[in-house]
Amino acid sequence: MGKLILVRHGKSLWNVKNVFKGWTDIDLASEGIEEARKAGQLIKSNLIDIDICFSSYLKRAIRTAWILLETAEMMHVDCRYSWKLNERHYGDWQGKNKDEVLKDVGEEYFLSVRRGYDTPPPSLSTDDKRNPEYDSNYKALDVSDLPLAESLKDTSKRVVNYFFEAIAPELAKGRTVLISAHGNSLRALIEYLEHISSDEIAKVEVATGVPHMYEFDGKLNVIEHYQLK
Amino acid sequence: MGKLILVRHGKSLWNVKNVFKGWTDIDLASEGIEEARKAGQLIKSNLIDIDICFSSYLKRAIRTAWILLETAEMMHVDCRYSWKLNERHYGDWQGKNKDEVLKDVGEEYFLSVRRGYDTPPPSLSTDDKRNPEYDSNYKALDVSDLPLAESLKDTSKRVVNYFFEAIAPELAKGRTVLISAHGNSLRALIEYLEHISSDEIAKVEVATGVPHMYEFDGKLNVIEHYQLK
Repeated sequence: MGKLILVRHGKSLWNVKNVFKGWTDIDLASEGIEEARKAGQLIKSNLIDIDICFSSYLKRAIRTAWILLETAEMMHVDCRYSWKLNERHYGDWQGKNKDEVLKDVGEEYFLSVRRGYDTPPPSLSTDDKRNPEYDSNYKALDVSDLPLAESLKDTSKRVVNYFFEAIAPELAKGRTVLISAHGNSLRALIEYLEHISSDEIAKVEVATGVPHMYEFDGKLNVIEHYQLK
Repeated sequence: MGKLILVRHGKSLWNVKNVFKGWTDIDLASEGIEEARKAGQLIKSNLIDIDICFSSYLKRAIRTAWILLETAEMMHVDCRYSWKLNERHYGDWQGKNKDEVLKDVGEEYFLSVRRGYDTPPPSLSTDDKRNPEYDSNYKALDVSDLPLAESLKDTSKRVVNYFFEAIAPELAKGRTVLISAHGNSLRALIEYLEHISSDEIAKVEVATGVPHMYEFDGKLNVIEHYQLK
């Protein structure tokens, strides 16, 4: 069985703004670029050979993957991208200031969306210009598959599906797989891999820019996991 | 049937040096970066949607692909890399000044290697530090497959094999394919696609940084080809 390395993209240009990003395609800030470089140096200094890389459709995760691979001198590693590794879709809250949303909707609903498992934020209307249907990145896809808002459970489901559909087959071939993605999409994967309950998962914090390595037994059960250093 | 776009990487840091590059992993010069950007702008202004990208293992071609895709706002396009798209392997001449090699070996042999079809340059010895066996980029591969010098015919054979093995199946699915590669590996593909004789192919010049589009009939015969502008 191969090995799996998760890396969460670092600081983006909107992190400072305290705004819900979701699927908004914000690039890395210079600090995030530096975090990706450090992640690449850790891959290199730990003598890890990556065989294949997966990332979301969002450029903050793609650029993290590219910088990491370049720093590790592995630009030639095949890369596959899927919207199913995207950040949680934050619906109508995308692009809005978190404090203002809290003030508008009240603490109970706000927390049930942010920290609960089953509650999605308000959906985008289909004619909203933020609908992925109007984003050229998604135009090769069947738009009826794409969400207009997601609960953490929705995100979790499509991430774990993608893990079985695309990533587990590579691990089964004995390959070392890198996934570059986001706080909530990686949290969903960690929930599955580490058997964390849906009550507990929202409390798990995924460090940015620190490669997290998983090793498996022959049945794809995690036997060891640790942060690279 | 899908469409095929070939792009040859632009100026590298060694282009100014008049040296045989071959598989030496030289990066793009700033002029080459600019050429890649222009190629990406042409993809974008011609409203082309790339579905999948192929490149060699050499960073001047990979960076060309990355910059092109980023400029065209298509960072999420899957990328697959193969040594079979590498530049011709220039054996023991790699890293040597062209004028000095000419002086050393005489014009007849020099020209038969450079412009003839069947003559390889002198091979690297297996313990030469330039042997791909000692290059970490190639360590996941079976080194017995990798050349120590190639005639244009050798290059042609592995490029066309790779075309059938990996690229034609994508065209058959109707996908638009980008290949970012090198003077001689693209020449090999053009030789095959345009039915150019091996006597004539050495005279074909592939412009750097200009996307060249091929359209096919249902049997993968070229029905039209043109440079984007």
